[in-house]
Amino acid sequence: MFSTFGTLFRASTFGESHGRGVGVVIDGCPARLALTEADIQRQLDRRRPGQSRLTTEREEADQVAILSGTQNGFTLGTPIGLMVPNQDQRPTDYEHLDRAPRPSHADFTYQAKYGIRAASGGGRASARETIGRVAAGAVAEKFLQERHGVEIVAWVSAVGELEAPELEALRIDRAAVDQSPVRCADAETAGRMIAEIARVREAADSVGGVVTCVCRNVPVGLGEPVFGKTEALLAQAMLSIPATKGFEIGSGFSGARMRGSRHNDPFVLKNGRLGTRTNRSGGVQGGITNGEPIIFRVAFKPPATIGQAQETADFEGQPVTLEARGRHDPCVVPRAVPIVESMAALVLADLVLIQKMRG
Amino acid sequence: MFSTFGTLFRASTFGESHGRGVGVVIDGCPARLALTEADIQRQLDRRRPGQSRLTTEREEADQVAILSGTQNGFTLGTPIGLMVPNQDQRPTDYEHLDRAPRPSHADFTYQAKYGIRAASGGGRASARETIGRVAAGAVAEKFLQERHGVEIVAWVSAVGELEAPELEALRIDRAAVDQSPVRCADAETAGRMIAEIARVREAADSVGGVVTCVCRNVPVGLGEPVFGKTEALLAQAMLSIPATKGFEIGSGFSGARMRGSRHNDPFVLKNGRLGTRTNRSGGVQGGITNGEPIIFRVAFKPPATIGQAQETADFEGQPVTLEARGRHDPCVVPRAVPIVESMAALVLADLVLIQKMRG
Amino acid sequence: MFSTFGTLFRASTFGESHGRGVGVVIDGCPARLALTEADIQRQLDRRRPGQSRLTTEREEADQVAILSGTQNGFTLGTPIGLMVPNQDQRPTDYEHLDRAPRPSHADFTYQAKYGIRAASGGGRASARETIGRVAAGAVAEKFLQERHGVEIVAWVSAVGELEAPELEALRIDRAAVDQSPVRCADAETAGRMIAEIARVREAADSVGGVVTCVCRNVPVGLGEPVFGKTEALLAQAMLSIPATKGFEIGSGFSGARMRGSRHNDPFVLKNGRLGTRTNRSGGVQGGITNGEPIIFRVAFKPPATIGQAQETADFEGQPVTLEARGRHDPCVVPRAVPIVESMAALVLADLVLIQKMRG
Amino acid sequence: MFSTFGTLFRASTFGESHGRGVGVVIDGCPARLALTEADIQRQLDRRRPGQSRLTTEREEADQVAILSGTQNGFTLGTPIGLMVPNQDQRPTDYEHLDRAPRPSHADFTYQAKYGIRAASGGGRASARETIGRVAAGAVAEKFLQERHGVEIVAWVSAVGELEAPELEALRIDRAAVDQSPVRCADAETAGRMIAEIARVREAADSVGGVVTCVCRNVPVGLGEPVFGKTEALLAQAMLSIPATKGFEIGSGFSGARMRGSRHNDPFVLKNGRLGTRTNRSGGVQGGITNGEPIIFRVAFKPPATIGQAQETADFEGQPVTLEARGRHDPCVVPRAVPIVESMAALVLADLVLIQKMRG
Repeated sequence: MFSTFGTLFRASTFGESHGRGVGVVIDGCPARLALTEADIQRQLDRRRPGQSRLTTEREEADQVAILSGTQNGFTLGTPIGLMVPNQDQRPTDYEHLDRAPRPSHADFTYQAKYGIRAASGGGRASARETIGRVAAGAVAEKFLQERHGVEIVAWVSAVGELEAPELEALRIDRAAVDQSPVRCADAETAGRMIAEIARVREAADSVGGVVTCVCRNVPVGLGEPVFGKTEALLAQAMLSIPATKGFEIGSGFSGARMRGSRHNDPFVLKNGRLGTRTNRSGGVQGGITNGEPIIFRVAFKPPATIGQAQETADFEGQPVTLEARGRHDPCVVPRAVPIVESMAALVLADLVLIQKMRG
Repeated sequence: MFSTFGTLFRASTFGESHGRGVGVVIDGCPARLALTEADIQRQLDRRRPGQSRLTTEREEADQVAILSGTQNGFTLGTPIGLMVPNQDQRPTDYEHLDRAPRPSHADFTYQAKYGIRAASGGGRASARETIGRVAAGAVAEKFLQERHGVEIVAWVSAVGELEAPELEALRIDRAAVDQSPVRCADAETAGRMIAEIARVREAADSVGGVVTCVCRNVPVGLGEPVFGKTEALLAQAMLSIPATKGFEIGSGFSGARMRGSRHNDPFVLKNGRLGTRTNRSGGVQGGITNGEPIIFRVAFKPPATIGQAQETADFEGQPVTLEARGRHDPCVVPRAVPIVESMAALVLADLVLIQKMRG
Repeated sequence: MFSTFGTLFRASTFGESHGRGVGVVIDGCPARLALTEADIQRQLDRRRPGQSRLTTEREEADQVAILSGTQNGFTLGTPIGLMVPNQDQRPTDYEHLDRAPRPSHADFTYQAKYGIRAASGGGRASARETIGRVAAGAVAEKFLQERHGVEIVAWVSAVGELEAPELEALRIDRAAVDQSPVRCADAETAGRMIAEIARVREAADSVGGVVTCVCRNVPVGLGEPVFGKTEALLAQAMLSIPATKGFEIGSGFSGARMRGSRHNDPFVLKNGRLGTRTNRSGGVQGGITNGEPIIFRVAFKPPATIGQAQETADFEGQPVTLEARGRHDPCVVPRAVPIVESMAALVLADLVLIQKMRG
Repeated sequence: MFSTFGTLFRASTFGESHGRGVGVVIDGCPARLALTEADIQRQLDRRRPGQSRLTTEREEADQVAILSGTQNGFTLGTPIGLMVPNQDQRPTDYEHLDRAPRPSHADFTYQAKYGIRAASGGGRASARETIGRVAAGAVAEKFLQERHGVEIVAWVSAVGELEAPELEALRIDRAAVDQSPVRCADAETAGRMIAEIARVREAADSVGGVVTCVCRNVPVGLGEPVFGKTEALLAQAMLSIPATKGFEIGSGFSGARMRGSRHNDPFVLKNGRLGTRTNRSGGVQGGITNGEPIIFRVAFKPPATIGQAQETADFEGQPVTLEARGRHDPCVVPRAVPIVESMAALVLADLVLIQKMRG
């Protein structure tokens, strides 16, 4: 279970690196939404490996097909099946993994949980699983944009020790983000990040990073106390993405260091409606959106696959040295940007539909 | 909706500061578990205000009653109703809140969402809502302890700028935590935290903090890819607690700054089973528990209610000065400790039951 | 699990014959609905035993208390806790049941499922469990009536072999139903039913019956293909009521004997909107309401508790003769009428809220 | 929503008559189950039209492909994607339906619900939707058979007014059922049913029928009080199948006419375990399986599509005469047999997994 996300706007993903393909079934997407494969392909292309020198060079087309749920370019309100065929399975690449679980991968835990695991390196724990999320998120986002004007933009705000200066969250758009292959809109930092990733690759190592995301024009009143608070569902969504280790919203961990007199967001009249002067709340109060931009950050660990030899133990506990073959992605955060956006879109689309019950 | 947490071990909370009481219905608790009100009262007493000079002095008995689901001190497998009557409602205290939403409280968003809100200051957004969580968590914890030997211990690791040195997560227990009213097991830091909270109270201000939690002896194999990963459900659980702004597991945000060669946890034989030498993963890999201690941290913002006058706007957008009356809690993290433990217990009890389907 | 019914309008029931009480938590009830205990008490009084000579004479007050979720007589949109205290537990009455499971009761299956069972004769399988359903159903019905004008009326259409002539489902109301204690609106049949029940009681036996229910003014478009079709959820709801053995909607089992040329409901203009000339569909087509009255029937078996001695086996398989003590209800269908109405209300309220996501 | 069925063993279906295909994603199927496409194809072939002169002659290959979730012929515990491509879409056939909703079809209600509908005659309300159910049910059944020895057999027990004599539910198997194309194991009745269906076809009409189903070797203790009782979930499952109008279990509607002294099932020692002498309960007591065979019956209305001209109204309410073109299935119950079995398998597989939480 738990391959389904959402209550009314529900995405059920399937597929791993081997097998015929990966995809998702979206149940609950509103009817009469204009939707073609091109709408979905755009984000899939931003997620896909091989976009630039920064990421792995393995080529995958990752062309999505709409299997059901639309007619003449419009959604019918029925389940939307989406699928991306697998082309490059190369199962032989992973044969050496049979005896020893890779450090900080999911080989050991999948074997312990299911008593079996995909030979193909990761199975559902592989990055390929995120295709279903991005495909579903693209549909959710189209709904949010067309019906509610919601804008969701994520970017790379840190790579390793390098942090970008705070950006204008109110203005940043995807075009600005995509100007650099590292998806950091600050050109100077982007340059240093690219250099750092090159150094890491050179060292046959990997490096982590942080993705920041802003959601603008979010309707007031979204979020379901007490366990479906907006930040609670965003946190679940983000920590379900592979390689994530942390989530913070608004002031986040730095808010824990503040005093209330500084942290509180006073109300003020803004364009004829009640807003807040500051936004340490990050767009949610009491778990419910207040109309200010939702801003959150997601921490990604360095990829577990590195070119260096690692001293570890095999399934029997015997010492063994593991060395990854082939080319690997030294830093996943640029590709994580559309995944973060997609998961945010799934959360918000679901909350928008739920809130309609109160209309 | 969303007042229910969990899939098989389900807790449905109810109640706000006014009305007859607050409580929870637990559905799915295994049968034949020894359970009396004393088992639950213990954690409720740790949550309750007025335990020490550090917290608000408002006295509340908060005695829990088991309404159903047990007989002769054992659970029947049927829904367990738990309730704590409200004794002190003082609705008049809040009349001045009718015109203006308190900054960084949920008055504005509840009104926007529901078109009505409890006059009693917070309603479901008040700290009193957490009684149901703690009551349910105490039952979940009893199940985890008795059937699986799981130990869950949380403590205050930061108050404002003051951070405790890293503790021996493998050994700390609740007795050590409760030696200081601030619930920091490091005596020297605890003393400084108490002094800081006194200063903050003196300044009619409030301060945030961080709670760290460790879960030991967790069975291997818990967690449901891909949206019910252990860390995803923990993140949802923690961000659903009032006043939380961040969650991180294992290396967390600091992991984002590391390289993979340092971050990876090599496997090693430990007491006859496969463990990891380091634990930057925080006890989960690929979303599934690996038998190492689960360690996570939760950021709490400073309480929104402060004694100082605040310049803000009323519901019509007119400038207004708000000043809180009565005594208020300048720092909630000591009381948040049992809440964090309870939510962790709810997550793990649910995942234990789900994993049994694979037995 | 599964003590919760519904997706957006959710009722979580708790309690058995022993313990402090029985009740329900309603999560998702819309805000700003006028609601007092009197609104709920009305249907509870129709459900309660001891209303007339026809039912068991055991007296129970069954006064409901609203624990949470309302203020000044209006719902807040937060969980509504409802509880009816248990007054009459008489645990000693059931001691003789320890050794042998009663035929066609749930003693054997509860013991097999949970490894323990309530000594108090039935536990969650007792009729007392239905109090939570009726309390929640009364709230659901108030919402449906006030906001959508929905009318739900059930009545006894058969007792044993006695069947009432077909009634004017478009006009029947609860006042007409309640004119007779047997809750059959046809006076002549009601008289014969009362005589039959007296005969059955005299014979220390019990007898089954059928409840028919009509839901009028139901909005067009309710029901969620493909597993949440209106008739599918009604069927689940009805077969979850104790002692039920069958459900049919519209033409039901008699429709299976018809030809399509007679069974089809041709469309026709009705009061300016499209309706159907006949209503063999029973108000649903393709699982979705079409605006015609929903009509369905529910079969109830004769109560398992009878005064006659029964030859059966004890838990060890040894032959034993069981004889019920005390007074028992020879026919439950009159009391089942408000339970059927309540479950129908829970289904429709949930579907109304879900359909709003498409508004 | 509601295209997903089940709690732990979850089937999410997608697809309609037009579009690329129909299918299902199964989430929660246990790992290490032997599974190939042939296992699934068998039941799909029994469901498919064109098996005999009795059913529509439209030819469809309906070959299933496993998209994900298996490796080397074994399930991985990850989501199993299954798909059957659509080959024969013939959208032009349905153009005349644009103006008028077909009587007792779902054209009117889908349009009312979604504001749009598939032009292809039925969309998700078409029989083709059931492919996903049957594919998922075949997997569920394989799990139930291999791990628990459960046997599920359904058959046609009535066509129109023709009822088969009561069969030996303890012995009947699918081979016996499939000896006749009408899937009635009583040869003499089968002959008369075939003749009746021929007469109905000749008359350009259609006819309803009843499918009876038995589930043997079901583990004791399945079913989740109070809303997930075995019979409640079976009722939901069956009434979610297109064209169903009724469900009864055990004594069913005839039980409503009985007295308790005759209806009760006395306990008796059977093969060393406690069983019941009779089985009017139909294998469930208090909503929980008791180890006796589960027996239930499902009523199907006559297909709405008939060759005769029908006087009805168009969407504007204007009188219109509709006449179906092409060849249509005059009686669907023979093809409904595997669908009923599949839905029963989905219910039982889910309840088996849930009950494991109590192991």
